[in-house]
Amino acid sequence: MAESGNYIDEIHSFDDRESNRFFIRIEFQPNTDNFNEVQFNEEFSVRAAEFEMQWELTEPEHRPRVAILVSKYDHCLNDLLYRHRTGQLNIEIPVIISNHPDLEHLAKWHDIPYYHLPISKETKPQQEAEIMKLLKEYDTELVVLARYMQVLSPDLCTHLDGWAINIHHSLLPGFKGARPYHQAWEKGVKMVGATAHYVNNDLDEGPIIAQGIQSVDHAYYPEDLISKGQDVERITLFNAVRYHIEKRVFLSGSRTVVFGN
Amino acid sequence: MAESGNYIDEIHSFDDRESNRFFIRIEFQPNTDNFNEVQFNEEFSVRAAEFEMQWELTEPEHRPRVAILVSKYDHCLNDLLYRHRTGQLNIEIPVIISNHPDLEHLAKWHDIPYYHLPISKETKPQQEAEIMKLLKEYDTELVVLARYMQVLSPDLCTHLDGWAINIHHSLLPGFKGARPYHQAWEKGVKMVGATAHYVNNDLDEGPIIAQGIQSVDHAYYPEDLISKGQDVERITLFNAVRYHIEKRVFLSGSRTVVFGN
Amino acid sequence: MAESGNYIDEIHSFDDRESNRFFIRIEFQPNTDNFNEVQFNEEFSVRAAEFEMQWELTEPEHRPRVAILVSKYDHCLNDLLYRHRTGQLNIEIPVIISNHPDLEHLAKWHDIPYYHLPISKETKPQQEAEIMKLLKEYDTELVVLARYMQVLSPDLCTHLDGWAINIHHSLLPGFKGARPYHQAWEKGVKMVGATAHYVNNDLDEGPIIAQGIQSVDHAYYPEDLISKGQDVERITLFNAVRYHIEKRVFLSGSRTVVFGN
Amino acid sequence: MAESGNYIDEIHSFDDRESNRFFIRIEFQPNTDNFNEVQFNEEFSVRAAEFEMQWELTEPEHRPRVAILVSKYDHCLNDLLYRHRTGQLNIEIPVIISNHPDLEHLAKWHDIPYYHLPISKETKPQQEAEIMKLLKEYDTELVVLARYMQVLSPDLCTHLDGWAINIHHSLLPGFKGARPYHQAWEKGVKMVGATAHYVNNDLDEGPIIAQGIQSVDHAYYPEDLISKGQDVERITLFNAVRYHIEKRVFLSGSRTVVFGN
Repeated sequence: MAESGNYIDEIHSFDDRESNRFFIRIEFQPNTDNFNEVQFNEEFSVRAAEFEMQWELTEPEHRPRVAILVSKYDHCLNDLLYRHRTGQLNIEIPVIISNHPDLEHLAKWHDIPYYHLPISKETKPQQEAEIMKLLKEYDTELVVLARYMQVLSPDLCTHLDGWAINIHHSLLPGFKGARPYHQAWEKGVKMVGATAHYVNNDLDEGPIIAQGIQSVDHAYYPEDLISKGQDVERITLFNAVRYHIEKRVFLSGSRTVVFGN
Repeated sequence: MAESGNYIDEIHSFDDRESNRFFIRIEFQPNTDNFNEVQFNEEFSVRAAEFEMQWELTEPEHRPRVAILVSKYDHCLNDLLYRHRTGQLNIEIPVIISNHPDLEHLAKWHDIPYYHLPISKETKPQQEAEIMKLLKEYDTELVVLARYMQVLSPDLCTHLDGWAINIHHSLLPGFKGARPYHQAWEKGVKMVGATAHYVNNDLDEGPIIAQGIQSVDHAYYPEDLISKGQDVERITLFNAVRYHIEKRVFLSGSRTVVFGN
Repeated sequence: MAESGNYIDEIHSFDDRESNRFFIRIEFQPNTDNFNEVQFNEEFSVRAAEFEMQWELTEPEHRPRVAILVSKYDHCLNDLLYRHRTGQLNIEIPVIISNHPDLEHLAKWHDIPYYHLPISKETKPQQEAEIMKLLKEYDTELVVLARYMQVLSPDLCTHLDGWAINIHHSLLPGFKGARPYHQAWEKGVKMVGATAHYVNNDLDEGPIIAQGIQSVDHAYYPEDLISKGQDVERITLFNAVRYHIEKRVFLSGSRTVVFGN
Repeated sequence: MAESGNYIDEIHSFDDRESNRFFIRIEFQPNTDNFNEVQFNEEFSVRAAEFEMQWELTEPEHRPRVAILVSKYDHCLNDLLYRHRTGQLNIEIPVIISNHPDLEHLAKWHDIPYYHLPISKETKPQQEAEIMKLLKEYDTELVVLARYMQVLSPDLCTHLDGWAINIHHSLLPGFKGARPYHQAWEKGVKMVGATAHYVNNDLDEGPIIAQGIQSVDHAYYPEDLISKGQDVERITLFNAVRYHIEKRVFLSGSRTVVFGN
């Protein structure tokens, strides 16, 4: 790349001795005199094939279309909307979907369509089908589960595999499943955290992108952990979304390589 | 207490709404004119009985006798010996016991008796009996498992219940059991930690006293986690031992109340 | 208190050997059978006088009236409004005052009066007089400078002494004055932070209530520090405001005693 | 490099827009079939000259010779010796120099020559001359000031510029000079830290390599800060020394680029 006069801003690499794969992320400013994307792709494909490389070229100006799923807790949604509005998060949010009507006012204030899709045991398949339809209609590139408090069906999990990020309110794999802060309280832990991970077909087991933590003590009842955990949850989710859209995250089996900054 | 002219330095209290118990720790300087320990105990016992209070009076000058159990890793032992030698940890270390001979030089340099009690599947009961005998002989008040890499038998666990502190190299209850750093690597977690807890009859499940954490990323192989984790382990273990000997830790079922500082 | 049948929830105390003062904060639930606030105040005053005690009794239900001053940065204001709206911060916000019109939409959405009081070198005395008038009109108990980017006059500082909280975007006393993130960048520091402190007559030198920190590296330009610092600033300011309204902060000369949780 | 069949393990780079310099660190395993260091150096020099590149090739097996200067505090020395002994720090320690006799026992136990060079106002020039002579005799590549409590003369500072690392017990540039923990206490800060930096001719102002931090509160008197700060100091110093010997630190004016891990 440098030989063609492109200006390299940043290189991160990692040679994974376990999987025998080499990961590299290069930020560069194309040489405006002669850069031609079509030509670059053609030429690079040839080199990439030699090394059995999987690769992708993206422009930092591209604003991915991110759909957000929520239930009643609004701290993550509020945070993402705030960062979107102020330009910290370079995305478009074409749609917000919820199984509750509660957060419509937030969507409205930001002029974003809000779909209330209630769910019951019986209507789950239909509701999930509607979600998938909406994601398609709105041309979604990434789905963010911003405390969407529903267990996804295996079908929807498989559908979202690799392009959906969930925030779980524990340091996974500790305290999987429901009510993790209550579990943490029971165990008397002195630290609780949050985990942002990709959705895959094994609930709460998708590849971890980011984790956050805070100290607690005996005086935190479960409701205090819930309240205190909100700052960690929203910052952890924000970091994961940012890393993803900045193409800093690479999948390596059930693990991720994250070239953070 | 104040009414008798004793000078109160510090009060910490916690009212546990779940267990309906009230915990309080008071540091005071006795009124040297009229303080009499025997009399204090007598009088206070009466008041304590009224409130069904469990209580204890200790002098900060008292240096508890702490036995240390180790295997081959020396970072926790080295740290405890250093803090003991420099006065950060107000304890006596009358004996060090190990299932390996490797760390005898450390004990020697500090003039502390070192017992090498090798262990095999067959000799486990005898070895543990010898440990218990030594703990008794050396008049031990607290046992610290400073990376003692043996699964204790239920008998020994029960014997040590409430007066032994173990350091586990994970954020319990995550990654219980053997090789927690390898488990953590498999899961691709972005944070690993350490947990100091009381030994009880359920291995790796005793009441948690202190936890510590550090951030890691994809580039940490299990051996890197092991090496990096040593600072967190030793500081976490030190904190737990210090809290214990300063009488800052109260048991509340399977949880602890820790009036830290 | 306990003798009168009141139920004590939490005690924190600190005996300051330097100033020879004893600080104590007691949370209790009054005995509903016989608690009478007037009588309590009368009786307690007598005891308090014996010990030359300064004291105050407040009800947790009381929602202090907090005025917020801002300029153009909205991250602190947005955070306070969010926590106010969701009940994390038990306050009333009767008025928002700014030297810029930019953040009026936020105030509007929350139905809070917004005063745009532009300022220039010449109009500074009048503008500050108007601020003081508004604070009075709106019966303000606490003023929060949520990134209000104006140097207050000595007069206004004195007026606000002890009942105004400012957030400074550095770990004071490092990087006082203007553009602290630029100063931090110049020095090549590896950590930057934020400080919430009471306003007093010495700018950026008031008693510190809370501080927060984050790690950075060489790749953070000043504009990155500004952007990254926003999470630390808003959480630090929130903590300080919360500690203040929960009566957890005591002044001790130029220092504070903070009974955090 | 890759074209010659060398295997690249890790790349870190940073393009500094302010200084218009590009920094890169490459870890590679030479192609054992054809790698020839002399030839590599010759060929690479030609390429490097084209880009006005400053560069260096080092072998990870190389163990730099590190002299340690101490006074009476032993926590940093003890930590470095421990990590040296256990292989965490891949260095040789040929000599320890002190202005006090107190820590000779530590040196002895590790079989390292210890020079006690007392200092007074009058003998300072001679003492410093002796230090410089010893550093030369012992073929020192790096000097570590592990809480050496003397203000170095401008001459010695200049002599050590760029190849000596100091640990200062504050978050520089806050609390420069003597007794930083006392200064911190005076200001009532809620966080204290430590800074490892290169020595240059401006005392306490050399380029910062690493910083560490801990939370404190009103209950920490200066002596508590001193005691508590020791863990942060020793870990921060260790990190800086490790980064330096792993060639992760690049100077960029008065700032550093540190490719940590």
